[in-house]
Amino acid sequence: VRTEPADPIPPTVAWADGAVRLVDQRRLPGTLAFVDCRSVSDVVAAIRNLTVRGAPALGATGAFGVALAAAAGADEHEVTAAAASLRTARPTAVNLAWGVDEVVRAWRAGGTDAAIARAQAIAAADVAANRALGTHGAGLLPPQASVLTHCNAGALACVGYGTALGVIRAAHEGGRVVTVWVDETRPVLQGARLTAWELDRLGIPFRVVVDAVAGSLFAAGSVDAVVVGADRIAANGDVANKIGTYSLAVLARAHAVPFYVAAPTTTVDASITSGAEIPIEVRDGAEVAGAEGARTIPAGARVHNPAFDVTPARLVTALITERGVLHHPDASGIAVLLATA
Amino acid sequence: VRTEPADPIPPTVAWADGAVRLVDQRRLPGTLAFVDCRSVSDVVAAIRNLTVRGAPALGATGAFGVALAAAAGADEHEVTAAAASLRTARPTAVNLAWGVDEVVRAWRAGGTDAAIARAQAIAAADVAANRALGTHGAGLLPPQASVLTHCNAGALACVGYGTALGVIRAAHEGGRVVTVWVDETRPVLQGARLTAWELDRLGIPFRVVVDAVAGSLFAAGSVDAVVVGADRIAANGDVANKIGTYSLAVLARAHAVPFYVAAPTTTVDASITSGAEIPIEVRDGAEVAGAEGARTIPAGARVHNPAFDVTPARLVTALITERGVLHHPDASGIAVLLATA
Repeated sequence: VRTEPADPIPPTVAWADGAVRLVDQRRLPGTLAFVDCRSVSDVVAAIRNLTVRGAPALGATGAFGVALAAAAGADEHEVTAAAASLRTARPTAVNLAWGVDEVVRAWRAGGTDAAIARAQAIAAADVAANRALGTHGAGLLPPQASVLTHCNAGALACVGYGTALGVIRAAHEGGRVVTVWVDETRPVLQGARLTAWELDRLGIPFRVVVDAVAGSLFAAGSVDAVVVGADRIAANGDVANKIGTYSLAVLARAHAVPFYVAAPTTTVDASITSGAEIPIEVRDGAEVAGAEGARTIPAGARVHNPAFDVTPARLVTALITERGVLHHPDASGIAVLLATA
Repeated sequence: VRTEPADPIPPTVAWADGAVRLVDQRRLPGTLAFVDCRSVSDVVAAIRNLTVRGAPALGATGAFGVALAAAAGADEHEVTAAAASLRTARPTAVNLAWGVDEVVRAWRAGGTDAAIARAQAIAAADVAANRALGTHGAGLLPPQASVLTHCNAGALACVGYGTALGVIRAAHEGGRVVTVWVDETRPVLQGARLTAWELDRLGIPFRVVVDAVAGSLFAAGSVDAVVVGADRIAANGDVANKIGTYSLAVLARAHAVPFYVAAPTTTVDASITSGAEIPIEVRDGAEVAGAEGARTIPAGARVHNPAFDVTPARLVTALITERGVLHHPDASGIAVLLATA
């Protein structure tokens, strides 16, 4: 009897003993530890302080956050307030608001059990979607592929398996020889800390580079494809993702290298016509400047610290989703994708 | 009587009491401290460990290094050995070998006094060249200019005044309103630590960004010009400079923003026909991974850490030198530039 090997990466978000259990991503790669959130304000704090991050993971976390309020016996007013605080904990990833709204709807229809069940279904669907989009995306890579990725769009950015890393993982599992260039992704280093940790656990070969190395890799012909995740995709196919993604898209186009965005369809915000309408979070400059005692910037110097940028659809070779691959995404293609069951 | 105000930035490299006195750039921006090198091996170590860096500064440091050997009474064999160890302390900046060779030649012709005098003349000529190229380059900027720069091509990269920052400084002194986007420049953070420190001292407004922000600034129309330095320029105008420079050149071209390289003509290596022949230093991955206790990358993970990249001449809008501005640099333009007294 052949059994599936245990996933070497635990679920990023889970419902455990009436709490929302999160991998503490601030402590990786040094320590794999968990944080149990027992109140909505715990969940909001965990989202804000980056204990949990990544658009699909935020969707599930928001969903479980509402379930937590429901399980605590919240009334309509309290659930609405919890939903509002969760929805606005961070602004850019649309999945967060989506996950919150889904569970509020389930709670109104069926109460606490329905809310918990819906949150758990969202978490399970996330992993299934990522496995599906991984399989779709793996087919786009050549048999021996050198892939560049940015930030962390892995299991840790989702409930499990990953989006961009899901594509890489599926290619690896399918026998393709994939090596990965991992952008360290300043200022929070999600690439160096999280993507490298995942690839190391999965036995997929990789090398970490500072973000500024990418250009020289393209120039040397050392990148066969770029695969990244997304925080929000507008109805016209424009993509908000981690700051630096747009630069990679421009470089990929200049070197005729395909640029792929891997994301579940829940990342599409059909209410927004273009990327210009996506709210871009600007975070505290202290993330860049370092803490007192380890400051790398003169005291008092100003920092501009946007967390995301927008890549126009025209630079996206294909959007890889659980429903299939949308080549050259545009408004009509996105509409067809969303209409597909 | 009007006197020149004292320069708020001390000389990066100077001859002091028979020693080579260097600003310790590893300790900035927190502490302005100096290191006195009293032997050639001290100088080689200071070059290797980045106490001093920047192509023109390395030229002067190499020059003073040979003067140090001469002053210690070295014979032909010892001077030749000192020159060899200085020339190869770091591989990419051509100014280092140039400065060393100049002083060896002076020593052979005129002994110790001639060696010291030649090194001091190189240092003085560096500041004069930077003031001249600064004036030439300032005229290229609009009256209100938002300039992006990368790494540190300031006074600290030279003996004084700076190349790319010399252009910005001359524009500022000439009454133009210049604001600067400062790339932090991972992994060693020469932008965040050194360029920000210089601009702060000079009272020129600036904001620090992580390197991956540049694309979004171009997309928003927030950059009027890119001005960077150079570590070596080939005879065809290809430019080796800090890793990440090439990405900025591609982004600038994609957004129709001028991309300027500011460097003294001593940075041109006429013996090299194209950038493909420039040796690119690959440094220890520990610079990227962090030290034990503050490691940001899983133990054992591999890092690729090239310190420089090559920007092809076709992406350079103009080369700004002490002899004037060479628009659209190519082999014939570089040849004319080098023939100009």
